[in-house]
Amino acid sequence: GESFGAWRLGQDEELLGLVTSVNVACGWHAGDPVTMARTVCRACERGVAVGAHPGFPDLQGFGRRIMGVTPEEAYGFVLYQIGALAAFVRAAGARLVHVKPHGALYNMATKDRMLADAIGMAVRDFDPNLVLVALSGSELLRAGEALGLRVAAEAFADRGYEPDGSLTPRIRPGAVVENEEEAVARTLRLIKEGVVRSSQGVDVAIRAETICVHGDQPNAAILAWKIRQALEANGVELCSLAVERAK
Amino acid sequence: GESFGAWRLGQDEELLGLVTSVNVACGWHAGDPVTMARTVCRACERGVAVGAHPGFPDLQGFGRRIMGVTPEEAYGFVLYQIGALAAFVRAAGARLVHVKPHGALYNMATKDRMLADAIGMAVRDFDPNLVLVALSGSELLRAGEALGLRVAAEAFADRGYEPDGSLTPRIRPGAVVENEEEAVARTLRLIKEGVVRSSQGVDVAIRAETICVHGDQPNAAILAWKIRQALEANGVELCSLAVERAK
Amino acid sequence: GESFGAWRLGQDEELLGLVTSVNVACGWHAGDPVTMARTVCRACERGVAVGAHPGFPDLQGFGRRIMGVTPEEAYGFVLYQIGALAAFVRAAGARLVHVKPHGALYNMATKDRMLADAIGMAVRDFDPNLVLVALSGSELLRAGEALGLRVAAEAFADRGYEPDGSLTPRIRPGAVVENEEEAVARTLRLIKEGVVRSSQGVDVAIRAETICVHGDQPNAAILAWKIRQALEANGVELCSLAVERAK
Amino acid sequence: GESFGAWRLGQDEELLGLVTSVNVACGWHAGDPVTMARTVCRACERGVAVGAHPGFPDLQGFGRRIMGVTPEEAYGFVLYQIGALAAFVRAAGARLVHVKPHGALYNMATKDRMLADAIGMAVRDFDPNLVLVALSGSELLRAGEALGLRVAAEAFADRGYEPDGSLTPRIRPGAVVENEEEAVARTLRLIKEGVVRSSQGVDVAIRAETICVHGDQPNAAILAWKIRQALEANGVELCSLAVERAK
Repeated sequence: GESFGAWRLGQDEELLGLVTSVNVACGWHAGDPVTMARTVCRACERGVAVGAHPGFPDLQGFGRRIMGVTPEEAYGFVLYQIGALAAFVRAAGARLVHVKPHGALYNMATKDRMLADAIGMAVRDFDPNLVLVALSGSELLRAGEALGLRVAAEAFADRGYEPDGSLTPRIRPGAVVENEEEAVARTLRLIKEGVVRSSQGVDVAIRAETICVHGDQPNAAILAWKIRQALEANGVELCSLAVERAK
Repeated sequence: GESFGAWRLGQDEELLGLVTSVNVACGWHAGDPVTMARTVCRACERGVAVGAHPGFPDLQGFGRRIMGVTPEEAYGFVLYQIGALAAFVRAAGARLVHVKPHGALYNMATKDRMLADAIGMAVRDFDPNLVLVALSGSELLRAGEALGLRVAAEAFADRGYEPDGSLTPRIRPGAVVENEEEAVARTLRLIKEGVVRSSQGVDVAIRAETICVHGDQPNAAILAWKIRQALEANGVELCSLAVERAK
Repeated sequence: GESFGAWRLGQDEELLGLVTSVNVACGWHAGDPVTMARTVCRACERGVAVGAHPGFPDLQGFGRRIMGVTPEEAYGFVLYQIGALAAFVRAAGARLVHVKPHGALYNMATKDRMLADAIGMAVRDFDPNLVLVALSGSELLRAGEALGLRVAAEAFADRGYEPDGSLTPRIRPGAVVENEEEAVARTLRLIKEGVVRSSQGVDVAIRAETICVHGDQPNAAILAWKIRQALEANGVELCSLAVERAK
Repeated sequence: GESFGAWRLGQDEELLGLVTSVNVACGWHAGDPVTMARTVCRACERGVAVGAHPGFPDLQGFGRRIMGVTPEEAYGFVLYQIGALAAFVRAAGARLVHVKPHGALYNMATKDRMLADAIGMAVRDFDPNLVLVALSGSELLRAGEALGLRVAAEAFADRGYEPDGSLTPRIRPGAVVENEEEAVARTLRLIKEGVVRSSQGVDVAIRAETICVHGDQPNAAILAWKIRQALEANGVELCSLAVERAK
C-alpha cells in the first residue's frame, strides 16, 4: 500500500498471496485514501492481517528522513494514522491487527526511548489489544512490553545485521542481502536458531517472531515465495499476527 | 480546532463554554495532530459533543476551493478523516458524535447527490449511529436520510439565505450578517418559527435543528454568547448532538 | 520530470533523445527539487529545450483535478513554479524556453479567459520572451497573443478531438488513440494539412505548431520515435521551441 | 511573509516601515504565492531590500524541526525556493538582494559544513552576487566566504548567546531576551563593540553586520522601532543589504 496518487509502487497483488500480515501506509509517507481502501479490501478478501504503517509527514522523502519531533507530536502522528487506517479496516468489516512504524520513525524508535514510549502510548490509547511490531532488541520493543502491549519482534530477511543486533545502515556495504538463496538461508536460521551472521562475520542472537519482506524491492514477490516455501519445507507453521492479537 | 502548526485561528477556548457541539478539523484543510488532541481533550473535559469536520486536501485554500473529485475519492477522504479524528476522541475516553463536512466539500454536497451519497456512505461505513450534519434542504441531508443515518439540519446564525433556502454565496452582498442583534433575532426566528428572511426580502422556510457559529470570526464568542442567552431566555432548551446520536 | 520522491514515472531518459522540447514538472503536481535538477541537467546536456510545466497544488490528484482558484491565485501559482524551475535551468547554464500549464490548469484555461489571462500575465511578468504553449484554438492561446507573448499552438498525437477542436474528454470513448500507426498518421496530417479527423468522423482544422507526447504512457518512447521518423521521412524539419523564443 | 493561506502571522505591515531588509518565506515552511506576491510588492514599494527565506518542506512544523537531508537535497531545496521568490521580485520590477535560510535549516548549517556548502552553492549557482546572511561565527558564514559569496554576519537582538557564540537553544532558560530595554542595549553593544554578554555571564565577541528581529513575536514592531531609534541616536547609519550586494 505504498503507492500514492498517480504513482505506483510495490508488488502488492503478488505479495498478498504469499504473506500472512501486511503493513499499509497511512497517507503521510505514502498511501492515499483510495489506495488505502483498495489495499485493505484486497487484504481482507484474502484473509491477510492488516496493520497500520504510520510514518513521518514527509511524502517527498518517503518517511525515510530523520525528523526532530517532540513525544507529543510523535504520539499524535501515530494515533492519527492508526485511526485513519483503522477506519478503512472497519469499513471492510474487519479489525486492525497490528501497528508497525515506518522508515525513520521505526529506526529512531529503536534507540530513542522517549519516542518509543510515545509510539507505544498511541497504540495503547487506540486499542490495547493491538500488536506492536518492533525491531528485535529495540527500545520500541521494550517500550511496548513495558506498556503491557502484545509485541512481535521483527527480523529482516534481506538486511545485514551489526554485531549488536541493529540493522546495518543502508549507506554501508552489506546493508542489503541481494542474493535470494542467502536471504532464504538467513531467514531459516533466524527462525529455527534465533541467530544471524552479522556484517562483521560473527553470529548474533535475534528474537525473530515476524519476518519482513520489503514490498518495494523488485524481487519482493519471488523472495517472499522462496522464504515461504523454505519455511514450510522445514516444518515452520506460519500464522498471521491476528493469532497474537487474539491471545 | 482550525489552527495549524505555528498558526493560531479561532476563539476555541471561549467558544467551548458556549456551544453544545463542536466540529473539529481533521488535518486536511486545517488542524494537525497536536491541535486535534488538545481540542478534543478540552471539549471532552467540558462535556461538549465532538464531531469530525472533514475537508478537501487543500491546506493552502483552507478547504474552501472547489475540487473535482470522484465519489470514490470523496468516500475515502471522509472515511480517512473521520477515522483520524475518532482516534483522538477514543484516546480521550469519549465517542465521536457527529460528522459535518467542511467548506467546499459541504457546499458542493448540498447540490451534488453523487458526492452527497459518497459522504453519507463513509459516515455509515464508519459507524451507522453517527449524526450527519447537513445544510437544511440539501442533497446531503436527503442522502443521509436515504442511507438511514441520523441527520441534523443545520442553519446559520450569521449567513444570508436565498429564496430557495440555499446560502447567499460569500462573494455576494448580504452573504454575512454583520450585525449581531440581527443575527440573534434571525436565529430565534429560525428556531421558533423555522423561517428566515432571504436576501431578496421574502421569508423562506428552513428546518433548523442545529445552529452554526463560525469559530474563525472575530466576534464568534460574543455572538455565540448572545445567541445562547436569547435562546434560553425564550424557553429553548439546548442539547448536544449526542442526544440525537443516542436515540 | 514527473517522478516524485521515491516514486518513478515516465520514460524520461529514452524520450530525451527523441524530442526537441520538454515540459518539466515544478513540484506541485509532480517533481521534487532533486528530480527537477537531474531532469534539467540531462535535458541541457542533450540540447533539448526546457519548459516549465506548472500545475495545481495537488500531488495526490497529479494536478488533474479541477480546482476553483481566483485569478490572483492562478497568477501566483504559475509565477512561483516558473521561478522555481528557471532556477535549475539557470544553475545548469541554460535559459528557460517555454511554459506549458499542466493537467486541469491547462484544460480549464482552454475555456476560462480570466484564468488564461492570469497565466499569461505570470509568464509575461517573469520574462516576456518566453514561449507560451497552449492548446490550439484555446482561450489560453488567445490570451497569450493578446498579451504580446510568443505562443506555440499545441496538438496531441494520441488524443481524440471533438468537432469544435477541443480534446475528447478522458472519460469518453475515443479520448486516447491507442493504435500507434494511427497516431503517427494523424500527427503527419496535423502537421502537413493542419487537419484532424474528429471523434464524430468529420475533419476539423487544427493549428499544430508543437506536438505533445505524454511521457507517462507505456509506449511513449516508441510513439515518439515513430512520429519523429515519419515526420523526417516526409520532409518536416523539427526544431525546438528555443528557435521561437529567439525570434 | 510568514502567513499561510487563511492563517495570518506577523506584523508585516508595521515592520516594513522600520527595517531595511526583509526575509520572505518561500512556501515550504510558510508563505503561499499570494502572500509572497503581496509581501514582495509592499516591500518594494517601501524600498526595503527583499531576501529569500528558504526552509525545510515542513509546514506543520514551521520549518523548525530537524530533518536529515542529503547535500543534494539541501541544494535543491534552497535553489528551488530562491527561484520561486525571485520570480515575484522580478515581477515587481526589483532584484533579489539576499538569502537567509530559515529555522532548522539555518541552525543545522551553523555547524554542519556539508549542509552549509550545499546551501552556499545553491545561492552561488542562482546568482553569485547575492548576499548570504548567516549566523556570526557559523560554518554557513565560512562556507559562503569560501565560495566567494558576499556574506552578512547576523546577530539577534532578542536571543541569548552561549560563550562559544552560538545561540542559546530555545528550550533553555535565557534563550529569549524578553525585556525590550535589555534587547535594545544588547543590540547597541553588538553593533558598537562587537560583543554580547552570554547566558553564562561572560562576554563573547560577535561579528554583527545585520540584526534580526523576529516578525512573529507580539512585540516585534515596538522592538524594531526602539532598536532603530537607539541605533540612530548613537550615530549608527543603517543601510539595507542591497548596498552590500552592489559592492
